[in-house]
Amino acid sequence: MKGNCLVAQSGGPSSAINASLCGVYLGMAANPDVDIIYGGINGIQGILEEKLIELKPILSQGDNVKILAQTPSSSLGSCRFKLGTPEDSPAEFAKIFEIFKKYDIRYFFYIGGNDSMDTVYRLSEYAHTADWEIMIMGVPKTIDNDLVNIDHTPGFGSCAKYIATAIKESALDNMVYDMESAFVVEAMGRDAGWIALSAALAVDSDGNPCCDLIYTPEHPFSKEKFLADVAAVRAKKDQFVIVVSEGIKSADGVYLSDTGEVDAFGHVRLRGAGSIVADILRDELEIKVRDTELSLLQRCAAHCASATDIEESMELGKLAAKGALEGLTGKMACLTRVSDAPYKVEYGYTDVSEVANAVKHLPDSYMNADFNHASEEGLRYLRPLIVGNVDIIEKDGTPEHLNLAAIYRNQK
Amino acid sequence: MKGNCLVAQSGGPSSAINASLCGVYLGMAANPDVDIIYGGINGIQGILEEKLIELKPILSQGDNVKILAQTPSSSLGSCRFKLGTPEDSPAEFAKIFEIFKKYDIRYFFYIGGNDSMDTVYRLSEYAHTADWEIMIMGVPKTIDNDLVNIDHTPGFGSCAKYIATAIKESALDNMVYDMESAFVVEAMGRDAGWIALSAALAVDSDGNPCCDLIYTPEHPFSKEKFLADVAAVRAKKDQFVIVVSEGIKSADGVYLSDTGEVDAFGHVRLRGAGSIVADILRDELEIKVRDTELSLLQRCAAHCASATDIEESMELGKLAAKGALEGLTGKMACLTRVSDAPYKVEYGYTDVSEVANAVKHLPDSYMNADFNHASEEGLRYLRPLIVGNVDIIEKDGTPEHLNLAAIYRNQK
Repeated sequence: MKGNCLVAQSGGPSSAINASLCGVYLGMAANPDVDIIYGGINGIQGILEEKLIELKPILSQGDNVKILAQTPSSSLGSCRFKLGTPEDSPAEFAKIFEIFKKYDIRYFFYIGGNDSMDTVYRLSEYAHTADWEIMIMGVPKTIDNDLVNIDHTPGFGSCAKYIATAIKESALDNMVYDMESAFVVEAMGRDAGWIALSAALAVDSDGNPCCDLIYTPEHPFSKEKFLADVAAVRAKKDQFVIVVSEGIKSADGVYLSDTGEVDAFGHVRLRGAGSIVADILRDELEIKVRDTELSLLQRCAAHCASATDIEESMELGKLAAKGALEGLTGKMACLTRVSDAPYKVEYGYTDVSEVANAVKHLPDSYMNADFNHASEEGLRYLRPLIVGNVDIIEKDGTPEHLNLAAIYRNQK
Repeated sequence: MKGNCLVAQSGGPSSAINASLCGVYLGMAANPDVDIIYGGINGIQGILEEKLIELKPILSQGDNVKILAQTPSSSLGSCRFKLGTPEDSPAEFAKIFEIFKKYDIRYFFYIGGNDSMDTVYRLSEYAHTADWEIMIMGVPKTIDNDLVNIDHTPGFGSCAKYIATAIKESALDNMVYDMESAFVVEAMGRDAGWIALSAALAVDSDGNPCCDLIYTPEHPFSKEKFLADVAAVRAKKDQFVIVVSEGIKSADGVYLSDTGEVDAFGHVRLRGAGSIVADILRDELEIKVRDTELSLLQRCAAHCASATDIEESMELGKLAAKGALEGLTGKMACLTRVSDAPYKVEYGYTDVSEVANAVKHLPDSYMNADFNHASEEGLRYLRPLIVGNVDIIEKDGTPEHLNLAAIYRNQK
């Protein structure tokens, strides 16, 4: 179908989301039926305000596709905007399709997580009733790795590689003095422990884990069990590393980070779960305890991206483009694992309706019997996802980036 | 002089300290007069306990020198042990020289910062009075960049490169949504602001700084000036990044991190300066504020090491070896900058007595007039130090490391 294309990004950013954008761009730019490829600024929220930028004039220049693929965070900008139902928010649907018509958009790609797939689903369903033919496709993305119907999500592998690398390095640092010391790291993951679990990929040259204890939201955290776990570790070594998900909670479902404090504006002030766990150690043990919250660092460390992740993310973008050009709509590009070693995946499509709003938790079998580390099955799953380095284009000692949202603002 | 060699590491670790160890090793291993090259475990503290490991059997294997050079943290282990005077601690000096004699050590190298150079000075002075000829040399190391008589210290460039990279990446992440948001990062540096200042190296593709405000211990931090600085930034942009040194203090010299709280063991509990600065923003502005303390990550991110730093660190180790073999003692290998662009340094030696215990603060001229960012002069100084990537040997997706202290323990 002749016409233009629109691609946008949504939800939390990652180190791989722009590789998917490159994939969509390359897949669409190669087709002579596709004229203008627009990027939507700040997701569906910016599209509603007609914030569009033409990508071909930028991405056809020099190394820009490669630089975009190595740029972390959503280059087009993102949003947390959740589209309602056509019944509840008829004006929004009407406005979006008005813009589709105005810009002759026949292909729309939305790169995001389960909330974004809900938007893709609603728009693709609405399209059946609208007087405008358009293919609407989802491209998966989330460091949280919590999407269903896909073996793992683009962005997760790079996040896992950063976590594994940082834990491996900081475990060495933590053991530099001849004294007892603990390092506590808080990883992202409010509902699912995938990111924290990836710390299990940090192993020393003898194959021993660099991280000693891992706690995830899937299993209740109790101070008593935690201190017993720590005592068991200390019986064997003086220096240890602990990784916790931000979302660890007690058996009655209260987040550890929920301190009950309220800030000057009446908002609940959350304290990092990692710093709370570190304080438990400080209160109970007279040893050196340091802690850090990886915060944004873990989801934007594109300088340490997994080549496997970046390649797959780009491939999924291309696949979404191919599907749309072949007439698919309401689908998300996905991948299925065929084997762990040698690592092999098969690409395909799944219905966005199945992905929308669903959450894939860490299976119990991916954790050990004490639920404080990965099982061998979990490690087999995780290992291939972090393999390979991206050859980064640098300028003056730091990676080059391409910020499409900034270019859009400069053009205005 | 025929005999054996001993090399050890001291003080806080870095990403480059093992490159200096490799330099000493390569310099000494190439000389036929040198028989056994020992590594001292946990610095002078471990040497006093005769914890020595022979390096040739390990480092002559395969890629081990290259792997050691890419290993962060002090591979031999470190200590914070400060040697007294020979008058106050005669037994320690006698014991050390007894060990030198027992192991026929004619060359001793100590890789460390200003405290370690004090040890080198005391030992080299004592050697003049002892009945044992030995060359005692210092090799500089500290991420703090606060040694005198050297243009910059090995380890600083890699730390600066990590900071610049992480700030560049997280600034992109911080601007992903169309809303006001701040990201506050705490960098190391209790007395000197070099590390925090390196955030100024993060510039976007238009050459604009990714970090908006930088606060260092050299200039007093006041809440009023800080809020005025933030207001000036917000007048121009909605999303901003702030970097503070851990050691920022008020005009009357009180560390911001000194909350006056005491833990269960009676120790003063320090809160991160970054989290305190973030809370000032949270209390005053109704915007999204995140903060992180880079903690160990910044000094052990060898996966992101500066090639310039690693090469210079190795060169300084080799130079110390060369000097010792030529009969120098009580000297530290050093480098002087000849030009910024093209970047050129000259290598040489300086008296450890001048380096011992002295601190090089950030010159005022390296900061802007408001003392909240780098000046062009500061940037000219910093820029060359982060140039170049190290080609990292990976195994299963994470960098390979060589932990000599662990090998020593396994041998026992």
